[in-house]
Amino acid sequence: MELLYILAILLFAARLAGEIMKWLGQPSLVGELLAGIFLGIVTARFPDTFSLLSSISHNDVFHGITELGIFFLMLLAGLELRPSDIVESSRVALGVALGGMLLPFGLGFGIAWVFLPASEVRFAQALFLGTAMAITAVPVAAKILLDLGKLTSRVGKTLVSAAVYDDIASLILLAVLTAVIRYGALPDIQTFGFLIGKVSIFFIITIGLGKYAFPWVGKKLRKTESEEFVFSMLIVAAMSYAVIGEVLGLHFIVGAFMAGLFFRRQTVSGEIFDDTKMKISGVTLGFLSPIFFASIGMSLDLSAVTQIPGLLFVILAAAFMGKLLGAGIPAYFSGMSLRESAALGSGMCARGAVELIVADIALRAGLFEMPDPTPQEITFLFSAVVIMAIVTTIITPLALKPLLEDDPKG
Amino acid sequence: MELLYILAILLFAARLAGEIMKWLGQPSLVGELLAGIFLGIVTARFPDTFSLLSSISHNDVFHGITELGIFFLMLLAGLELRPSDIVESSRVALGVALGGMLLPFGLGFGIAWVFLPASEVRFAQALFLGTAMAITAVPVAAKILLDLGKLTSRVGKTLVSAAVYDDIASLILLAVLTAVIRYGALPDIQTFGFLIGKVSIFFIITIGLGKYAFPWVGKKLRKTESEEFVFSMLIVAAMSYAVIGEVLGLHFIVGAFMAGLFFRRQTVSGEIFDDTKMKISGVTLGFLSPIFFASIGMSLDLSAVTQIPGLLFVILAAAFMGKLLGAGIPAYFSGMSLRESAALGSGMCARGAVELIVADIALRAGLFEMPDPTPQEITFLFSAVVIMAIVTTIITPLALKPLLEDDPKG
Repeated sequence: MELLYILAILLFAARLAGEIMKWLGQPSLVGELLAGIFLGIVTARFPDTFSLLSSISHNDVFHGITELGIFFLMLLAGLELRPSDIVESSRVALGVALGGMLLPFGLGFGIAWVFLPASEVRFAQALFLGTAMAITAVPVAAKILLDLGKLTSRVGKTLVSAAVYDDIASLILLAVLTAVIRYGALPDIQTFGFLIGKVSIFFIITIGLGKYAFPWVGKKLRKTESEEFVFSMLIVAAMSYAVIGEVLGLHFIVGAFMAGLFFRRQTVSGEIFDDTKMKISGVTLGFLSPIFFASIGMSLDLSAVTQIPGLLFVILAAAFMGKLLGAGIPAYFSGMSLRESAALGSGMCARGAVELIVADIALRAGLFEMPDPTPQEITFLFSAVVIMAIVTTIITPLALKPLLEDDPKG
Repeated sequence: MELLYILAILLFAARLAGEIMKWLGQPSLVGELLAGIFLGIVTARFPDTFSLLSSISHNDVFHGITELGIFFLMLLAGLELRPSDIVESSRVALGVALGGMLLPFGLGFGIAWVFLPASEVRFAQALFLGTAMAITAVPVAAKILLDLGKLTSRVGKTLVSAAVYDDIASLILLAVLTAVIRYGALPDIQTFGFLIGKVSIFFIITIGLGKYAFPWVGKKLRKTESEEFVFSMLIVAAMSYAVIGEVLGLHFIVGAFMAGLFFRRQTVSGEIFDDTKMKISGVTLGFLSPIFFASIGMSLDLSAVTQIPGLLFVILAAAFMGKLLGAGIPAYFSGMSLRESAALGSGMCARGAVELIVADIALRAGLFEMPDPTPQEITFLFSAVVIMAIVTTIITPLALKPLLEDDPKG
């Protein structure tokens, strides 16, 4: 019952604000985030009146629902694309992903090194800020493109591919960060090799099954003439892919995306495919994903605004410019127009939930409480990074919309 | 990730077994329950290999997902019916509900009084067995009728109405049981009056809003021309109804059902209604409800079969005959045919999840550990009641199918 109360309020606020944004010609994601921010401010102001809402960050059941939201969002993004879209756009996307990670990582590391006081944990803290900057949230990028109806445009395909590559590379950064936090040293070459080996195995399994097992099972399912069965089995396949991904050290979102990618019209039939996609779209965009985005908005903690305004400004500027130039310049030199390159650069900006996960790992490891006594810059670095995640996630769709809208190649 | 692993396995097993049952001409619910029983036996045999699966009864997140399953199932059942269906069938349904509760309650109470040793808790134990017998699970009855495509038949409408009345009356029984367990005495007349007052307020609010607010909001929503928005707002309305129900002392399933009942074609438009219902149906029948039914099957504990076979047989026979005659005879005297009356009687048999909730309350209160030393009949009463819940839930659809199949009035 507590769960239904929380879900009802978040869903209502998020969808209402989302529809208002749509009516104003903006992506609904912006409204969903703003609704979450509004709810977060209200519950922080009156914690006793809204005790259930103010405790959702510790509510495991609610957390499970938001994970399902991310899962379905990635499955839906996969359904909208074909494997060939990813392959075709890989030439540009790899460069975009690489530049879009290296420049922000360097900026984040540099800022931390310059602004944070020297201590035995400064290297770990700098590595954390670099990693937080280098991240692109695939689910956010996918949702923005869905909102704008541009997922299958040239920029859309390249952006999603680059975001997926970014996500895979982030894992390596995260492994490094975790090792440094835990053991105080960089992981050895064997650990790297092992990690890359596991990632390769993941793609061999998922691509292999996707190419050969999916059409075989799809043919059998088509014969049962039971539409709900195909829907169920697609969810089972995507969940299995997600679990394989997690077991092999990847985040589950990559698995859900890969399963969606290999489920095609030809796998079943045009009619069953459309029907299945419509149901996935309903439960995702109409139920789980607004709740997920509102929950991101609710996690906003504004203390950095008043406590470390200067550092916050530098971090925000670096977060935006790092991705815009880091991803945009390789795109431009791969033959994209200036406008397309700017769209790609700003599209890679959104950090969303993935960064919040990384920030949470650092928080639990006590990275913002060292050295003792802890200087203000470090105490409020967590708040600054959360603000960066949410601000970049709101700015990205607002920037992307005019850039994609009149794109003649879109 | 743990959650995705659990959901993937349960969904796969439940849907596969459900489709096989459908192919054998039986309702898919039977397969979903059997899949759960199978998984329960396997995980009990190899608890270390399937540690995650064997711990789901203590997994709050998984429990939240099954609650969502019940919620959507009741919402879908409401969508399939019109308020007038309930009103029209009330004359017969009230008698069916009353008889279908009183006889099983009397049998359960009597069996406990005769077979359990005298002690200061025998009254509470007898009250518990009576309550457990008197229950009918609305979600199960609704799912069986959906599986058979008979929800809108005369028997179907009457059965769901009677099950809803039974559910409301069960609340009063549950309040009595809770008071006896907690204070050792029957609740006073004021508590009863208060309970009935709250139930009346619930229906005044939900019927009032359903009749006047739903069409008004629906008209506004129709203008937005956003299908996903109607879907979201229906979920929000149903969740709000469910929360109102819980606040006023009713189980949330009644709220979800009422919200579905008042969302009609005329509330929005034929096209939007069909589209919305299809999405609710997809997420319910293709995703959440199979997981819920498999989880019921997994809770099966067979120890009573070997420990107290005699008492178990008496309980099972009373559970079936009590509902068959208690609900069937009033139906027959209200002018239904013998076959329709038998269908109604066996349809009211399914205890499903609601009984498991009641058994759990009694378990937590320590009712199966008193008096000290505890006789076998009491120790294994919990297992017997769980077996009764699952066996009646499996028998009901198997019995109902031939009875409804060639019904000329169906």
